[in-house]
Amino acid sequence: MPLRNVTLLGATGSVGRSVRDVVAENPDRLSIATVVGGRDAQALAQVAIEVGASFAALAEEDAGPLLREALAGTGIASGAGRDAVLEAVARPADIVVSAISGSAGLEATFAALAPGRVIALANKESLVCAGEAVMARVAEVGAQLLPLDSEHNALFQVLGAEPLAAVRSMTLTASGGPFRSWSAERIAAAGPEQALKHPNYAMGAKISVDSASMMNKGLELIEARFLFGLEAGQLDVLVHPQQLVHGLVTFRDGSVSAGMAVPDMRVAAAHCLGVDGRLDAPAARFLDLAAAGTLTFEKPDLVRFPALGLAMAALREGGAMPAILNAANEVAVAAFLAGRLRFPGIAALVEAVCAATPGGCDAPRDVGTALAIDQDSRRRAASLLSQASFTVT
Amino acid sequence: MPLRNVTLLGATGSVGRSVRDVVAENPDRLSIATVVGGRDAQALAQVAIEVGASFAALAEEDAGPLLREALAGTGIASGAGRDAVLEAVARPADIVVSAISGSAGLEATFAALAPGRVIALANKESLVCAGEAVMARVAEVGAQLLPLDSEHNALFQVLGAEPLAAVRSMTLTASGGPFRSWSAERIAAAGPEQALKHPNYAMGAKISVDSASMMNKGLELIEARFLFGLEAGQLDVLVHPQQLVHGLVTFRDGSVSAGMAVPDMRVAAAHCLGVDGRLDAPAARFLDLAAAGTLTFEKPDLVRFPALGLAMAALREGGAMPAILNAANEVAVAAFLAGRLRFPGIAALVEAVCAATPGGCDAPRDVGTALAIDQDSRRRAASLLSQASFTVT
Repeated sequence: MPLRNVTLLGATGSVGRSVRDVVAENPDRLSIATVVGGRDAQALAQVAIEVGASFAALAEEDAGPLLREALAGTGIASGAGRDAVLEAVARPADIVVSAISGSAGLEATFAALAPGRVIALANKESLVCAGEAVMARVAEVGAQLLPLDSEHNALFQVLGAEPLAAVRSMTLTASGGPFRSWSAERIAAAGPEQALKHPNYAMGAKISVDSASMMNKGLELIEARFLFGLEAGQLDVLVHPQQLVHGLVTFRDGSVSAGMAVPDMRVAAAHCLGVDGRLDAPAARFLDLAAAGTLTFEKPDLVRFPALGLAMAALREGGAMPAILNAANEVAVAAFLAGRLRFPGIAALVEAVCAATPGGCDAPRDVGTALAIDQDSRRRAASLLSQASFTVT
Repeated sequence: MPLRNVTLLGATGSVGRSVRDVVAENPDRLSIATVVGGRDAQALAQVAIEVGASFAALAEEDAGPLLREALAGTGIASGAGRDAVLEAVARPADIVVSAISGSAGLEATFAALAPGRVIALANKESLVCAGEAVMARVAEVGAQLLPLDSEHNALFQVLGAEPLAAVRSMTLTASGGPFRSWSAERIAAAGPEQALKHPNYAMGAKISVDSASMMNKGLELIEARFLFGLEAGQLDVLVHPQQLVHGLVTFRDGSVSAGMAVPDMRVAAAHCLGVDGRLDAPAARFLDLAAAGTLTFEKPDLVRFPALGLAMAALREGGAMPAILNAANEVAVAAFLAGRLRFPGIAALVEAVCAATPGGCDAPRDVGTALAIDQDSRRRAASLLSQASFTVT
């Protein structure tokens, strides 16, 4: 089989780590030539050397000299800033892994779409903020978009070659996060330390808080809508604390196909990277259901987890509302992590920003419009946040 | 969509009932023109009238006059005996449902294979006794074989268009039967009344006893081997009392796809009959995982359920051994139901018949050879059964 050339956007994050592991396990099938990071020059340089990349780029322009210095004598070319990221994306690649978080990831994803390329997508903003534009571009250029997120990857795999008309609904599972069995009062008093304790995964701070509020699952519902082309009413969530079932497709005839795996991002990564045929996983990465013994499922509680309800409302409303919701949530989570907002304030701020936005906004048709909506919503959120009712007192 | 013409072999049994329900739910998509039964003339006549068939045939030749009489004045033509069954199979049909049990079903299945036809297979003997011959014939004539059994149907669906090389293993789930949590002593003392109490399905006596001994699951493993072209070592069994997961495909990269549905044969039937696209199931037939709450899984106990171990050994041995095992089991179960054998005697008789057969027998290459092996094994079993050690004393 030919060696497949991988460009890794978001090389130093947790998704990037999983992708690097899978590539290292399959040196005869995969090679990483280009790596892109956010702002940590030392970390990116180390990754670039470890994987034997030929080019490394940082999104943060100011960190360029540090990166150049860290890579001095290695023969690895480097760059920093928006243009350097776009240069990295334009370099030859069979597979581009899009795992830069935030709006920088959206622009890079859009630029990465090219004929015949596989885009393994972990950047949430691409589908949440500009889902229609991204999917239209995917179809236009003839790229193949594969979801790298465990839930969407599971749904993608079990949908297989079935036509959309065969699908009655799709269900994403949620761990329920660290507050799953907590009372509303206890959740209200939770600080960053509690919110960052995800039961099954070690993830970044932003996504850990989103998991605690269940906003993460709401954003995933929005992503699923665009990725699969479903109606809002065809998507739902089940809380499944063991996180062995990641997604379920219910067909019109009553058959249900469930995508399962151990809670390890490398499984979905391996699926995306196995473009010429499934890669072999090490023995420890196989699900042992007899050892797991028991799987449980319950409906999500939208009273204790209002952020999920807000995301579902944005999903139904469509247009620009998902992008507005997402931007407001980013500001709210940052304020919570900075001690400027109590945990229930996250949903309250998001709700206030969504409510303050005139209805009927069109979905952004291009990345520029999506980014403008994102910026505008962030400003509204910051402005509301400065009001007394949203501060910790 | 065009109306699809269905021939229903085994119209009066429990699978036949499920197929008739699904056809009745979809009168614009499906129509049953030909029905075949075993020996109950009244039941078959009633079914033929109910579905509006144009031809009805009974396998039992002596019941022909009764069937003719029961259908007098209805305009439904009828026949009885082997030739009438083959005539029924030869009539025009888009889909042939093969749900006649026993060796009669094997011959009918083989005869039903025709270019472009869909064969929905529920007859166990076709794959257990002549798996290689049937699958070779399927490929030769260009028929499409769809498994109607819940477990195999689930595996078939979740395998989808994936190549066999992508598969690491397949797992069939088992309810564990009515004796799942019984001690070996209690199982040894069980009579037909206890063995017939299947926890989730109302089925025929033979298959209920096979479920109690777990021989049923062993035979299904053998079927799966031929249906999917796997090695014996790639197949295993998990006990899952809730019977909501029916089968799991584990891919080489660690992804697992699980086929689920409520324990209702109509779901698999609807999948097989939905050749032009999935049929719509009534609302009550959709899985509600939140209501189910908990799913459990455990390894099967081959000490308390030695029949499963015997079937696994026959699976590994291959050749004619599965056919020999199956025939011996039929004789043993009949003897148990007739009060001539205690429950542990079923496995003991099967083991003795298998052990008495010279190793290295080739797999039957045609139906005639498969039927000859079947008859020969039945004779050996009957002969052993007449010895004192196998009788109830």
